[in-house]
Amino acid sequence: MVKKARSNDVIFRPHFKTHQSLEIASWFSELGVDKITVSTLDMALYFAADGWKDITVAFPVNIPEIDKINRLASRIQLNLLVEDPDTLMKLDSVLDYTVNIFIKIDVGYGRTGIPYYSVDRIDHLIETFQKTDLCNWSGFLAHAGHSYKCSGSEEIFVVHQESKSAILSLLKYKKVFPHIQFSIGDTPTCSIADDFGWCDEIRPGNFVFYDLAQWQIGSNSLEEIAVAMACPVVAKHPERSEIVLYGGGAHFAKDRIKLQNGKVVWGLLVEHSGHSKDSWKDMNDFNWMTSMSQEHGILHTSETIMEKTKVGDILTILPIHSCMAGLAMGQYLSTGGEIIERL
Amino acid sequence: MVKKARSNDVIFRPHFKTHQSLEIASWFSELGVDKITVSTLDMALYFAADGWKDITVAFPVNIPEIDKINRLASRIQLNLLVEDPDTLMKLDSVLDYTVNIFIKIDVGYGRTGIPYYSVDRIDHLIETFQKTDLCNWSGFLAHAGHSYKCSGSEEIFVVHQESKSAILSLLKYKKVFPHIQFSIGDTPTCSIADDFGWCDEIRPGNFVFYDLAQWQIGSNSLEEIAVAMACPVVAKHPERSEIVLYGGGAHFAKDRIKLQNGKVVWGLLVEHSGHSKDSWKDMNDFNWMTSMSQEHGILHTSETIMEKTKVGDILTILPIHSCMAGLAMGQYLSTGGEIIERL
Repeated sequence: MVKKARSNDVIFRPHFKTHQSLEIASWFSELGVDKITVSTLDMALYFAADGWKDITVAFPVNIPEIDKINRLASRIQLNLLVEDPDTLMKLDSVLDYTVNIFIKIDVGYGRTGIPYYSVDRIDHLIETFQKTDLCNWSGFLAHAGHSYKCSGSEEIFVVHQESKSAILSLLKYKKVFPHIQFSIGDTPTCSIADDFGWCDEIRPGNFVFYDLAQWQIGSNSLEEIAVAMACPVVAKHPERSEIVLYGGGAHFAKDRIKLQNGKVVWGLLVEHSGHSKDSWKDMNDFNWMTSMSQEHGILHTSETIMEKTKVGDILTILPIHSCMAGLAMGQYLSTGGEIIERL
Repeated sequence: MVKKARSNDVIFRPHFKTHQSLEIASWFSELGVDKITVSTLDMALYFAADGWKDITVAFPVNIPEIDKINRLASRIQLNLLVEDPDTLMKLDSVLDYTVNIFIKIDVGYGRTGIPYYSVDRIDHLIETFQKTDLCNWSGFLAHAGHSYKCSGSEEIFVVHQESKSAILSLLKYKKVFPHIQFSIGDTPTCSIADDFGWCDEIRPGNFVFYDLAQWQIGSNSLEEIAVAMACPVVAKHPERSEIVLYGGGAHFAKDRIKLQNGKVVWGLLVEHSGHSKDSWKDMNDFNWMTSMSQEHGILHTSETIMEKTKVGDILTILPIHSCMAGLAMGQYLSTGGEIIERL
């Protein structure tokens, strides 16, 4: 991803909500990354305390947390998102320090932001910046989150092209405000597409680990998934081809995907040697977690797996959503045996 | 629930995985409860450290955690679940102190346990106890978790009757082993049914808060739900009747329910005065969270709600699954303004 950003001559501002770890952050730092994205002010405070000095909080600004905003703005370059004039004015009235503000643009996802074609609303918000004292308008920020609903690289390319057209329609503002930036980036389009020269910054995050949701979309191969859950086997039910794992919603959160055959699944068994340099072994068949409660995960297994698995064994399960599984677990164990702390 | 247990002359051993709080535990203590259920050894250690002396871990015993098991067994009456002879013998070989063991019985849920009609497997496991030194066979334990798939009290009664028949078929063991106990209990059947004289112990847990999943099943009314999420409004999109809340998977976990009309929802808006003695106000219409990502929740609202809601307001959302939402949040705030800590 670093190379992709460099070859397009755009800023690489990775989203750190996936790993939320100072140590993993340092791996990015070693590659020259010095600007990051997070999704909460607590995450921003955590990384700021470790020396990160340019942080975008990619979530609509939440003014009840103004104390944290001011604490951050006093120490780092804090970049916030706003999508309406009232919130902008309210924020400005309670700020003690300067912040950068990106206008959140909806490029088709339909979650947050001003639709890219709502020129009047965009113009009105831009004009409102003239009335503020501590809010610097820095540009437009978009998240093409509808790429998460794609299936395969062709559909991802369509979303990528849509985002590009949407952003290009806003390029005219650069003539009047040459300093403004266009920030985009979601893991599917940043994984699949190569041309990003039309924007100024990309912000993918999940790619640091990838997961089964991204694999299903078409962002990554199974071998590229860099995080898994080690789940003890606590019971076997060969009569229904089920192994009961100590691994449930408390560990994975409750993310699921629906496979092409309509089956809803919660995780995938892979084999791992435990050695640091090995990837998951190809299992030749797919053994899915087919049900999950707070502590239990139910793994539907082939006869081969059932036969060679014993109660007390530790199985390796790829998660549906690595961001949420990391959040639920609170720390990582490297294949080298080292604990990697996180927020 | 205390009254229901008393009137049936059965032990009330509430499941504390829902609240996981020493303070809330003390409310039970004040009502005379001195035996509890938990789902992890960490939870058992947490409550044992506060003086709880009789704890059942209602999850198949996980022998890799033997150090925690021995630490607990040295200090309290620890009750564990086993469902196969190999695990029982392995456990016995690594125990340093005596534990009570319940045989996990499957009364129709199909998740864990020996099916109640598998007499040979049950007999074989019972016989295996004669070879153990530190494992006391204490009885049978069942969880009719298929009650969670019910819709309405009639279906819950059916599950209740099934559990009862299953357990009654095992009563013959009491003639040979008069000391053994029959432990059952899930929130739906314990909420709806009244006759529990045929067992020795009930273990409901979720009822302490209830939630929308239980409401949909028919266990409780909306007014009986005792926990809610306070979510700041961060954006409004009247053109699609959507309010964006700071409240996503990081706060609620990712539980959902499917309504009768086929709609999948993630939470329900209620009004609350903020005063400690008031319950949720009847909203007269249902404003559901219809989508959720890591930090964002999308609330689909009526025109009335849209008009009177401003960015920065805090809305009150009932969770789908109170156990998982509590786990994600890590503490509670009472309506009286007091922080209630939890594990």
